[in-house]
Amino acid sequence: MNFDAMFEEQLQALKDEGNYRYFKELERKCGKFPRAANHEDGQKRDVTVWCSNDYLGMGQHPSVVAAMCEAVQRTGTGAGGTRNISGTNHDHLLLEAELADLHGKEAALLFTSGYVSNWAALSTLGSRLPDCVILSDSGNHASMIEGIRHSRARKVIWQHNDVADLEAKLAALPANVPKIVAFESVYSMDGDICPMKEIVEVAEKYGAMTYLDEVHAVGLYGPRGGGVSEREGLAHRITLIEGTLGKAYGVVGGYITGSAALCDFIRSFASGFIFTTALPPAVAAAARTSIRHLKESSDERMQQRRQVARLRAALDREGIPHMHNDSHIVPVMIKDPVKTRMLADYLMDEWGIYVQPINYPTVPKGTERLRFTPSPLHTDADIDHLVNALRTLWRQCAIAHAVA
Amino acid sequence: MNFDAMFEEQLQALKDEGNYRYFKELERKCGKFPRAANHEDGQKRDVTVWCSNDYLGMGQHPSVVAAMCEAVQRTGTGAGGTRNISGTNHDHLLLEAELADLHGKEAALLFTSGYVSNWAALSTLGSRLPDCVILSDSGNHASMIEGIRHSRARKVIWQHNDVADLEAKLAALPANVPKIVAFESVYSMDGDICPMKEIVEVAEKYGAMTYLDEVHAVGLYGPRGGGVSEREGLAHRITLIEGTLGKAYGVVGGYITGSAALCDFIRSFASGFIFTTALPPAVAAAARTSIRHLKESSDERMQQRRQVARLRAALDREGIPHMHNDSHIVPVMIKDPVKTRMLADYLMDEWGIYVQPINYPTVPKGTERLRFTPSPLHTDADIDHLVNALRTLWRQCAIAHAVA
Repeated sequence: MNFDAMFEEQLQALKDEGNYRYFKELERKCGKFPRAANHEDGQKRDVTVWCSNDYLGMGQHPSVVAAMCEAVQRTGTGAGGTRNISGTNHDHLLLEAELADLHGKEAALLFTSGYVSNWAALSTLGSRLPDCVILSDSGNHASMIEGIRHSRARKVIWQHNDVADLEAKLAALPANVPKIVAFESVYSMDGDICPMKEIVEVAEKYGAMTYLDEVHAVGLYGPRGGGVSEREGLAHRITLIEGTLGKAYGVVGGYITGSAALCDFIRSFASGFIFTTALPPAVAAAARTSIRHLKESSDERMQQRRQVARLRAALDREGIPHMHNDSHIVPVMIKDPVKTRMLADYLMDEWGIYVQPINYPTVPKGTERLRFTPSPLHTDADIDHLVNALRTLWRQCAIAHAVA
Repeated sequence: MNFDAMFEEQLQALKDEGNYRYFKELERKCGKFPRAANHEDGQKRDVTVWCSNDYLGMGQHPSVVAAMCEAVQRTGTGAGGTRNISGTNHDHLLLEAELADLHGKEAALLFTSGYVSNWAALSTLGSRLPDCVILSDSGNHASMIEGIRHSRARKVIWQHNDVADLEAKLAALPANVPKIVAFESVYSMDGDICPMKEIVEVAEKYGAMTYLDEVHAVGLYGPRGGGVSEREGLAHRITLIEGTLGKAYGVVGGYITGSAALCDFIRSFASGFIFTTALPPAVAAAARTSIRHLKESSDERMQQRRQVARLRAALDREGIPHMHNDSHIVPVMIKDPVKTRMLADYLMDEWGIYVQPINYPTVPKGTERLRFTPSPLHTDADIDHLVNALRTLWRQCAIAHAVA
């Protein structure tokens, strides 16, 4: 049987519809963010990165870099085992205590990634709570969708951010089955923020557990970076808050926080937690330093907000359509995979601006876009340069200026 | 609804059967492996780790430590995005080329962990190859089982390492459906090694793809550390070789290698690859340095083999039953979770020897054990100390000396 031919046939279909992915090969340069070197055709050239999820540039913060190196030299490069079998290090427990404190919860549990934390926690809850029903926002991330799917629990999808629809669906379920309302605070691709208070109140009314993904919000919202749930004063009413160490905190890894019993339950039963090598202690040490810094300092958040507002205002001035939302994510809709890639290539080649074309399956087909994430380290000149480029592009390409 | 009460009820059941897990809190000490500090009851005390999967101590190798620090200082602490969206770094591609070369394959693909590489690759293959049947060794790791389950492909379990059973099951399937034979080289808990040549030949006879997990073998077997498939000269006949960077290589992460079309297929369709932040470039740089070292040097492998043989001989001399196998893993069967934990506690408290009790779900109930993994850095005196401790224990406890 010719397996390669079967693979190639499906890859060709991706190429035919414009959804085949070409990864840009970067060299991050510590201290130079958002500048990086781009490798292409054997050449290396400096570009400005406009699509990173290292939202605050903490991946190059001197104290975070120093903490990681110090811990590598103190503990070595790896954990040496699963959490159960020699892989739990003091640095992991310090980080878990820091995360529990960040969200005002009794406990936290660290995973190798945000993807794994969602997948493992939801698949464990859904499969082990008898007759459990998971009510999932229609915009939820792939990691939540796969976790729910893996649990084989009954799934009810409610319309994105539509609390009336959520309530109707909760009301239709038997009172005595365990229910989990799963949703995000900041949705990564549209950048919209959920009506958290209303969701929490409806969930409480029907006795449902709340499962909140804050991966695009931790470090960025709330006076200590505790996310939208901290900003809204709602963290204590949410059963489980999930987050990442790989975006605003600039490192890698994921976590959940909640009651001690909840975290112990996931710790004890989740395959994706049990059967995997623990993160290196040095990763935990770096993440903890980053979290502690952003608990104390709001400078990065304030400067990011300023630059986001500045970019939006400039885009408005030039009539360049972008999605309006209350977050730090600035999507410019193109709605065609081939055109989106063409525009991104032009920005890279002619202007030294790197923004990845966002296509299916990251967004639904027909909603392809460029997604800009201004950081506190993008200068006013960077923003002017980007807006100049987009203005030129818009004129040249005569793409419809209608607001998306 | 009282969710915490539901969690606690299931946790209590674990405790009642002796399967509740207590993690030891270690401090790894770079340069001192296998010595580490153990935190307990507010005290800190040096112990000898006898159950690490940092099999060769590469997690503290000076060149690996230096590579990680150098890359942190050069690139920062994180990748800053998914592989598609600004997260692919030059260091990732260098590592993937190194891995492809290690196994003599066209391409490699990096994942956040070995667990994720198995789960993502098998779930993608199983779900996207029409009518695919996966023939899974009954001893396969949880990550493979969950990947197959997630794919919802038809699964056929064959008896552990039983080639006749595999052939009977292959022969019973229609000739024209895609088949995947999924198995491991070294099984982690019993330490037995598969009859690889026979498995490959049967798979070839029936036109099946071979999916081989070498996580407990890479770095350890074969003249360049390419695993059992390298040692047996079979790598080129195996469709997909999966491995880890978190055990013998001493860092963290997982990978697959295979044809360019295969790796591109998984890269393009696997949710667990697409929707997750890339590993830090510094992790990739450290792993690459470790792989390159173990391609050139067999000293670590030779010294490990010597110490494994020394421990086995001493156990035999003392009549302490241990499972015979051809690998570096030395299981001493206790067959009861409460007793296993009691023995491990005694070794820790009285002798400063840390070996984690291995219980369900890592091994089947009734096969609980102590699992020793001698490294090249365990000295002869360490082995004598361990055997002394076990001899004393065996005399005191009057546990049956029957060979497991």
